[in-house]
Amino acid sequence: MAPLPEKRFCVPDLQKERANCNFDQEEITNLIDGGADQTALRRKIEHFFFSDKEFLDPVRPEYMSHEDRYANELRKACHMMRKINEDDEIQQFAGNMEGMRMLVGAGVGAALCKDGNPLSVHFVMFLPCLVGQGTIDQQAEWLGRAWAGEIIGTYAQTEIGHGTFLRGLQTTATYDPDTQEFILNSPSITASKWWPGGLAKTANYAVVMAQLYTKGVCHGVHGFIVQLRDEETHKSMPGVMVGEIGPRLGLNTNDNGFLMFKNYRIPRKNMLMKFSQVLEDGTYIRPKNDKLTYGTMVFVRVAICHDSCRQLQRAVTIATRYSAVRHQSELIPGEPEPQILDYQTQQYKLLPLIASVFGIQFAAMHVWKTYQQLTEDIEAGSTALLPEVHILSCGLKALSSSDTSSGVEICRLACGGHGYLASSNLPRIYTNTTAAITYEGENTVMWLQVARYLIKSCREASQGQPLTKSVSYLTANPVSAHENKDLSNAGLVEVFKSAVSSMVSENYKRLQQCCDEGEQYELAWNRCSVLLAQCAEAHTRYFVCEQYVQNVENLEFSDGVRSILRQLCRLYLIHQITLNQGLFLRTGTLSSAHISTLEGELCELLALLRPNAVNIVDSFDLHDRVLDSTLGCWDGDVYQRMFEEALKSPLNQTDVPEAYHKYLRPLMKSNL
Amino acid sequence: MAPLPEKRFCVPDLQKERANCNFDQEEITNLIDGGADQTALRRKIEHFFFSDKEFLDPVRPEYMSHEDRYANELRKACHMMRKINEDDEIQQFAGNMEGMRMLVGAGVGAALCKDGNPLSVHFVMFLPCLVGQGTIDQQAEWLGRAWAGEIIGTYAQTEIGHGTFLRGLQTTATYDPDTQEFILNSPSITASKWWPGGLAKTANYAVVMAQLYTKGVCHGVHGFIVQLRDEETHKSMPGVMVGEIGPRLGLNTNDNGFLMFKNYRIPRKNMLMKFSQVLEDGTYIRPKNDKLTYGTMVFVRVAICHDSCRQLQRAVTIATRYSAVRHQSELIPGEPEPQILDYQTQQYKLLPLIASVFGIQFAAMHVWKTYQQLTEDIEAGSTALLPEVHILSCGLKALSSSDTSSGVEICRLACGGHGYLASSNLPRIYTNTTAAITYEGENTVMWLQVARYLIKSCREASQGQPLTKSVSYLTANPVSAHENKDLSNAGLVEVFKSAVSSMVSENYKRLQQCCDEGEQYELAWNRCSVLLAQCAEAHTRYFVCEQYVQNVENLEFSDGVRSILRQLCRLYLIHQITLNQGLFLRTGTLSSAHISTLEGELCELLALLRPNAVNIVDSFDLHDRVLDSTLGCWDGDVYQRMFEEALKSPLNQTDVPEAYHKYLRPLMKSNL
Repeated sequence: MAPLPEKRFCVPDLQKERANCNFDQEEITNLIDGGADQTALRRKIEHFFFSDKEFLDPVRPEYMSHEDRYANELRKACHMMRKINEDDEIQQFAGNMEGMRMLVGAGVGAALCKDGNPLSVHFVMFLPCLVGQGTIDQQAEWLGRAWAGEIIGTYAQTEIGHGTFLRGLQTTATYDPDTQEFILNSPSITASKWWPGGLAKTANYAVVMAQLYTKGVCHGVHGFIVQLRDEETHKSMPGVMVGEIGPRLGLNTNDNGFLMFKNYRIPRKNMLMKFSQVLEDGTYIRPKNDKLTYGTMVFVRVAICHDSCRQLQRAVTIATRYSAVRHQSELIPGEPEPQILDYQTQQYKLLPLIASVFGIQFAAMHVWKTYQQLTEDIEAGSTALLPEVHILSCGLKALSSSDTSSGVEICRLACGGHGYLASSNLPRIYTNTTAAITYEGENTVMWLQVARYLIKSCREASQGQPLTKSVSYLTANPVSAHENKDLSNAGLVEVFKSAVSSMVSENYKRLQQCCDEGEQYELAWNRCSVLLAQCAEAHTRYFVCEQYVQNVENLEFSDGVRSILRQLCRLYLIHQITLNQGLFLRTGTLSSAHISTLEGELCELLALLRPNAVNIVDSFDLHDRVLDSTLGCWDGDVYQRMFEEALKSPLNQTDVPEAYHKYLRPLMKSNL
Repeated sequence: MAPLPEKRFCVPDLQKERANCNFDQEEITNLIDGGADQTALRRKIEHFFFSDKEFLDPVRPEYMSHEDRYANELRKACHMMRKINEDDEIQQFAGNMEGMRMLVGAGVGAALCKDGNPLSVHFVMFLPCLVGQGTIDQQAEWLGRAWAGEIIGTYAQTEIGHGTFLRGLQTTATYDPDTQEFILNSPSITASKWWPGGLAKTANYAVVMAQLYTKGVCHGVHGFIVQLRDEETHKSMPGVMVGEIGPRLGLNTNDNGFLMFKNYRIPRKNMLMKFSQVLEDGTYIRPKNDKLTYGTMVFVRVAICHDSCRQLQRAVTIATRYSAVRHQSELIPGEPEPQILDYQTQQYKLLPLIASVFGIQFAAMHVWKTYQQLTEDIEAGSTALLPEVHILSCGLKALSSSDTSSGVEICRLACGGHGYLASSNLPRIYTNTTAAITYEGENTVMWLQVARYLIKSCREASQGQPLTKSVSYLTANPVSAHENKDLSNAGLVEVFKSAVSSMVSENYKRLQQCCDEGEQYELAWNRCSVLLAQCAEAHTRYFVCEQYVQNVENLEFSDGVRSILRQLCRLYLIHQITLNQGLFLRTGTLSSAHISTLEGELCELLALLRPNAVNIVDSFDLHDRVLDSTLGCWDGDVYQRMFEEALKSPLNQTDVPEAYHKYLRPLMKSNL
């Protein structure tokens, strides 16, 4: 736990849970933070911001009007930017992409600007774009001003009629060599930029992605630095129509906007020219390697895995603590109502999610390491790892965002009616987490990209070509169910490998057969795509299981921690296998008897892990401000906190509301 | 379709979809409404209310503060109550429980009071309680005043520390024979009533469920009519502490409240005394049959199935129409971007949900008929059907609320980023639908009740006792996979029956074995409860499949409609079987080859149903006001509507927001 006063109060139910922790919680905290130094830094950052009362909301944002919510979050976002400069270490930390992402992301960031930070796209997209795609000259011109907050930018790619399919974008940037300017236009309503965070009212600049035309030829989508608002008056520029897209399921203060251009001119030097250029006369110079921009996508997707995982930690911490405090019904007639965490059905909801946290974490760590290797390789001139990293990050982005979203929702529902209350914070955690299923590559699109890679690899394998590491198992021989099976963790990973390999192979043949019957490849692909997407998910699931077992066995842990992690890993494996039992039975990799045995063991694991449930979530070390939950607070004083929160409702400031006099009384006295 | 001008405008993509409908849409509309007369009445009601501008919101509720939202919904709720009396037929319709439920429920009700009607509990709980549990004298005293709106009531059962477990309620009502009054008390914070809709600021009366004490003995939970607020001033009564519980994931204008008592006295005659009584001297008369109140629970649960199903219809109509209008990416290189409904992965998301609508509808129709039979039987003195109806309604409530919630979310995600926009209405449909998983019997609790009935039935069967209809199949002999299998719809229902029967039997044995090993029954039950809950779900799924096939084959339909319903029914069956393939493979009721064959057929069914997708959702006949969606409107003019909605945002009424001057400008000019 965080440095705490020795005898911090908590309710007796939680005292009991915490009395007998038999593993080193700090070791798990460090694992999740990425090292003891990172834990210390995070705690310092939390203390730095949370001790500043400026970040408190006057009332819960849910009580405010849409305009007031935006103003309130903008106030805190601006204060945060100033405050960063008050501390050298924190300023330095914020000075790189990873650090800044944390400050505006799912951890401390989400605790400060709960419903979305209108400045976050400036830091996590606009600045990285300048760094990654701007020339030295462009960086000199823009970067300093952007860091200083003199200009605030956003990143405008998605259009109202065009999402994932980059080539479909309609916004045009046509070069006019006479004035050496690009003319920006939105040729139709579907070309309107739609969704960029910070675009509506906050940003005065944007990187705009548009179809580049020069000398009458379209050269595809390129990025341009575009001024949207006057730097003095903040009024939108003539030729620029910009505004807000309206309320959303969540993240209502991200200030998502729309943007249209009408013959809006920007100087030639505003095209991001690190990779391709337009010369003064309009000559287009194409990039040497058009895959280099994939790097940023990989970074963003791994960051999404980490953010999603943080959200799941929040939800499962809240639900687990609440389940230890909540008493309900009876297990044994006549005895007092038990903690609901004693019900197996409740354990089954929460413990596999606790196990998931580590699975996603280990898999993301692996992708991150491979990405760093790739970055080094690229500087040495090799992009060989790129497809592998790209596909791993696509798959893991989809798996982690969908697993954590459904996991958060399971946690919310596991808290019964109270999970529906805003003060539990589970509604907001859900609405924020589920957004990741869609943004930065919609999950179905991600699965189909992974599937393409799997099918391509099958084809290459059948032609005797070597496969990259993550898919090399596709050539494995299936394991029969009827031999004397090794059901150890390592054995189950082998089982997973064989089963997925068979599944991919069956669907590769199915696709092949469609083509053999004369169907055009693309149509055959579409006809098989549901099953192919399922293959991609199974492949990624296998990857997570493999990483889980490897990390639990190979990293350095004390005995107590390794024992807990082994139990969690086993729970994860068995839970996934029983959930997808059809896959294993169909491929003959497990028999019905095996599944029954594993089901029995699953039930035992739930009972085994139950006593440590609270201690494990405690070791996620989530500050009460990060949890922001009446149900999940460290002290477990749930009902008192719910009441205190309720009493803050503006409707509770008077006994009889105005609306009674205005609407209800006339009805009640009207003698209908 | 509803009575429309002949050539109503719609976008070309939808014109194309609608050009070749080959079945009678009105027939499906009538099926869903419950008859042509019901369709006519519903359309009349919609026209009656929707043509009244008083029901329009000045701005979207999401833009308003919490207080303004409540006032706005209360305004409309009151207007609705008045307006009902303007039309004789509608007044008559509203005069019974079913009719009133529709007026405040998921159809027209949800379109009028979008975020929850603060008067709804008055009509769907308070009034039925008076009717069902009040004596003739009590009805004479209260019912007329309640119908006239002179008093507004709610139903206060759930406490902050006590949910489903009725016996755990802590509120006490202690009889004082000296004054012939009950003294109400909330002995601790966990005894506070928490959640009742309309309780916070709207209701001045409530039916309060409390532990009845008389002559020093506790007689369990009973209902009492309690005045909460003064009828003249609306101020809360001395001894009554009442207020609002704070914002929620959705339904923010339901006016959910808390309620505590401190020595609050009510007259003896305020106890609901139809079934049990307290005499003047304090003598307690127990009820003759304590199961009679189950009837109301069955009614409410079937109503939830219908409401949930209506919500799924809304979501899938929106997502299907949008998928016909939205173009994205490419199927065949070089060709224009196709409608996303042409992607198999999109069809796989939506078409099984369209199929679900009918499955849930048919199953709910059956439970409703059995319930009506029960009501007749009870008047004739027999309660034999009660356990059967009770269990069917528990299972179907859980299945329909969880299927429709996840289904609505699939629809939302199938609309990509735009599904996250409030103006799509999918966020609200989800937040409202998911509440049904928890209220009126939390789903896990429901599944375990069904499981208890299954295990009890297994035990009775093993003792040679006869089983009730819905579980009689538990004695069926398993069907082997290897015979020449009948994979027709009827054949698949048989397969389902055998598989579930085997599954229940295996887990009955598992439970038995735990007991044989010496474990106490209740603990053994808990140890097996995850798997037992899965049995309950499989059992209920089988019931839905059976009802689906029976109704499609046995009801009267034209050829075109029956053909469509058969395809949908088959899609539902195959989808459910492939989703749960482990069950069939484990029990040997289907082989791997069967599953592969069915997967192939599933893909063909998607292609077969694709051309009618829009026509089928059109036949749900949901008024644009009921859909309330920029993405789902009948004309498909999606992008134009999204823009128009966005422009209404209060933030878009000025170019530069006040918050810029207050917070952003100082930051940008500060030279950080």
